[in-house]
Amino acid sequence: MDRVIRIGLLGCGTVGSGVVTILSREADDITARTGAKLEVTRVAVRDLTRQRDLPLDPSVFTDDPATVVEADDVDVVIEVMGGIEPASGLIRRALTLGKPVVTANKELVAQQGPELYAAALAAGVDLSYEAAVAGAIPIIKPLKESLAGDRITRVIGILNGTTNYILSRMTEEGAAYEDVLADAQALGYAEADPTADVGGHDAAAKCAILASLAFDSAVHGDDVFREGIESVTAVDIGVADRLGYVIKLIGIASESEDRVAVRVHPTFLPKDHPLASVRDSYNAIYVEAEAAGELMFYGRGAGALPTGSAIVGDVIDVARNLLQTARGATESQHRAKPIRPMGELSTRYYVLLDVDDQAGVLAEVAQTFGQHDVSIAQVWQEDTDGSARLVLITHRALEDDLRATVDALNRIDSVRRVTSVLRVEGEILG
Amino acid sequence: MDRVIRIGLLGCGTVGSGVVTILSREADDITARTGAKLEVTRVAVRDLTRQRDLPLDPSVFTDDPATVVEADDVDVVIEVMGGIEPASGLIRRALTLGKPVVTANKELVAQQGPELYAAALAAGVDLSYEAAVAGAIPIIKPLKESLAGDRITRVIGILNGTTNYILSRMTEEGAAYEDVLADAQALGYAEADPTADVGGHDAAAKCAILASLAFDSAVHGDDVFREGIESVTAVDIGVADRLGYVIKLIGIASESEDRVAVRVHPTFLPKDHPLASVRDSYNAIYVEAEAAGELMFYGRGAGALPTGSAIVGDVIDVARNLLQTARGATESQHRAKPIRPMGELSTRYYVLLDVDDQAGVLAEVAQTFGQHDVSIAQVWQEDTDGSARLVLITHRALEDDLRATVDALNRIDSVRRVTSVLRVEGEILG
Repeated sequence: MDRVIRIGLLGCGTVGSGVVTILSREADDITARTGAKLEVTRVAVRDLTRQRDLPLDPSVFTDDPATVVEADDVDVVIEVMGGIEPASGLIRRALTLGKPVVTANKELVAQQGPELYAAALAAGVDLSYEAAVAGAIPIIKPLKESLAGDRITRVIGILNGTTNYILSRMTEEGAAYEDVLADAQALGYAEADPTADVGGHDAAAKCAILASLAFDSAVHGDDVFREGIESVTAVDIGVADRLGYVIKLIGIASESEDRVAVRVHPTFLPKDHPLASVRDSYNAIYVEAEAAGELMFYGRGAGALPTGSAIVGDVIDVARNLLQTARGATESQHRAKPIRPMGELSTRYYVLLDVDDQAGVLAEVAQTFGQHDVSIAQVWQEDTDGSARLVLITHRALEDDLRATVDALNRIDSVRRVTSVLRVEGEILG
Repeated sequence: MDRVIRIGLLGCGTVGSGVVTILSREADDITARTGAKLEVTRVAVRDLTRQRDLPLDPSVFTDDPATVVEADDVDVVIEVMGGIEPASGLIRRALTLGKPVVTANKELVAQQGPELYAAALAAGVDLSYEAAVAGAIPIIKPLKESLAGDRITRVIGILNGTTNYILSRMTEEGAAYEDVLADAQALGYAEADPTADVGGHDAAAKCAILASLAFDSAVHGDDVFREGIESVTAVDIGVADRLGYVIKLIGIASESEDRVAVRVHPTFLPKDHPLASVRDSYNAIYVEAEAAGELMFYGRGAGALPTGSAIVGDVIDVARNLLQTARGATESQHRAKPIRPMGELSTRYYVLLDVDDQAGVLAEVAQTFGQHDVSIAQVWQEDTDGSARLVLITHRALEDDLRATVDALNRIDSVRRVTSVLRVEGEILG
C-alpha cells in the first residue's frame, strides 16, 4: 500500500492552481517516483465564495490559513500567498510543528531567508524554495547541491521576465520604453503598477537569494544596489547595438576578498555573451565556478505551470525525505559577509551627453573625465538640431570616480544634460 | 567532532586527479556544508610507478582495484576508470557491500544502467552519475528530481564537445572537416582515433541515459539511431548558413504514444534556436516539459575540473545521505518502453545532389520525390564546372519514404551522386 503525504496549500491564486493541476494530472507518475500519494487536503483562500475549476473537494477550502498549518491531516505546507505577513508567521509555525514547507515567496526569502533556514534547521525539517527564483528553472538545487563542492565566483542573471520582454521589444522594434510598457500592460505582461518589475525590486530580491546561496552569506534584499530600466531610451539601445552590445537588466553577484558585491541594473552586454540572446520574457542565470567553469540555466521565469512545476519538484523531494525521516541539503552557516560598497565597483561605463554644438566642448568634457581618473576608451559626436550628442565609453573605472565625473560634467555650462550612464560588461569591442 | 566519510577512488587519470584536487582545495567548505570530512583513503591506479603530483599519502595507492572496494576504511566508491569491465563488477560489488557509488562512466551507464539502478535499489544505497552526461552541467539531478512532477516531452542535446568544436570551426572559418579534425587532434581536443566522438557513439551513450531518465524507460545505448559528422562538408554548412541554419550534432529523445524515439545525427538547426549559439567545445541540453515549458542547461561537457566538480557534487549528496542513513531519489520503475523505429520518423530533410547540367534533370528529380510521397518545399540549382548542384529542402516526410526516394535518385542516370542527406529541425525558414 502506498503511503499518503497530505498537503496543505496556503493560497490558491494563479500559482496555487497550477500546483493543484499538476499534482492531479501527474498523480500516477508522482506516486511511481516517490512511493507515496500526494493529496491536497486543505487549501486556504482569501475569498471562499469564488468559483474555482479545480479537481478538489469543496470541503478542503477555508479562509483561515492558520487552521491549514495546524491541521492533523496536513504533513507538508505549500506557501503561495506571497507577501511578508501572514506568510512568515505561518511558515515558522509549520516548521515548529515539524512540517516541511515549500514556498515560492521570493520577497520573504530575500528578506528573512537566513532566519527561516535556521528555523528549519532547528526543527530538522525541509524548507524548499526553488520556485522563488526564476520560476521553472532549476537553480536553487544546482547551487545548493550540484555545485556544493565547487567555489562559485560570480552569478549573472536575467531574473525578471517583464523587463526582459520590454527591453527585447525595444531592441527588436526600436520602440520607446513608454510605448512598449503600455503595450505590455495591455497584454497583461506588466502590472498596472509596474514598479516592482521595472524598478528592479523583483530582480534584486532574487539576486539576494542567489548571492546568499552562492557565497554562503546572509545577503538581504536591501543589500542589493538597484537601478531600474525606466530611463533606458531607444537612443541608448541604438548606441549599444552599433557597438556590439544589447542592453539587459541583469543581477550580478560576486565574491572577492571575502566580501560580497550584489547589484541589479541595466547593462551593456556583449552580443556574444550567452545571456545576450535570452529574449522575450525568458529568464537565465549564468554561473562562473572555479572547477565547473561557466554554466547557464535558461527557461521560463514565471507563469502558473512553470512555477507550479518547480513547486511540485520540491514537494516530491520533501515527500521522499519525509518517508525516510531524513532531510535534504541545508544551507551553510550563513554568517553575513561584508557587502562591498557600490562606490568600489570597477567596471566600464557608457555615458551619453547633450552638449552645445560649439568648439572646445569635447576638450572640456575629456579633461573632466581625466581629472577624475576616468580614462576614455571610445568617443564620438553626433550632431542633432542645434545641439550635439556626445557618446563616451570608458575603460575600467571606479564607480565613485565615475559619479564624481558626472557631477562635474553637470557643472559645465556647455553640457546641457548627462542623458544616460550605464555600466558595460565584458571587454572593449568594435 | 566532524564525522569522516572515507572515499575509495577507482582510477586516477585526468578526471580522478581533478576529483582529488577539488576535494583537497575545498575541504573546509565541504565540511561546513556536509558536517563531515571527506577523506580519500584508497586509490586504485594502473601504474604504481607513475609520479603523481597530488595531495595524497603514497600509501593510499594500489594497483588492485578490488581491494579498494572491499576495504573497511572505504565508505564511498568513486569509479572513474571507464570501460565496461572491471568497472561494472567493481561497482556491483561495492553496492552489494552497502557502499554508495559515484561514477562518471557514460558507456557503462548507457549499457547497464537499469541493472545497476536495480542493484543500488536492492542494496538501499545511492548510485550517482551526474558526471556521466555533459560533464559539469547539472542535468541528471534536474531531470530526476526538479522535473519529477512534470512530464518531459523532448530532450535535445549537444552532448559531445569534440564534434561541436569541429562543427563550430567549420562554420566560422568555412574550413573542411579533415583540416579541422587534424588541427583538433594536434591540439589534443580530438583523440588519435576520433571514432567515438565523430561517429556519434559518445553522444549516443549520453542520449540513452537522458532518454531513460526523461521517459522512465530502460533505453540502451544500442537503441539510439546514430550518424556521425564525418561526411558533413563545407558545402553543407554553407547551404545551411544561407538558409538560416547551423549544423550541429544533436541527440534527440522524445516520447509519444508510450514509445520512445532516440537518435543522434548532424542536424540543420534554426539559428534562433537556443542550441544554435552553443559554440566551441561547450555542451548544452534543451528540455521541453509540459508544465515547465522550455529549459536549457549549458556548460563544459568535459575536462578534469568540470567533470570533477560534478563528481564531488554527487559525493557530497551521497555523504549527506550516509550520515542520515537515507538515500537520494531513485530512478523510476524502468520498464523498457518500445523504441519507435527510425523509419517512422517524420521530419524535414535537406538533400544535395550532383547532377548532369542538362534539361529535364530537375523534372525527373522532382517526380521521384513526388512518387515517394516526399513533398519539396524549396529547391535551387547551382552550376559548377560541367555539372550542376541541386539543393532541396523537403516538407515533413517519413524517414522510410525519404530513404526510398534516395535509393530511386541513385538509380537515375543524370544524377551523378546523392552528396548529402541531413535532417532539418524546426519550421521552414527563409
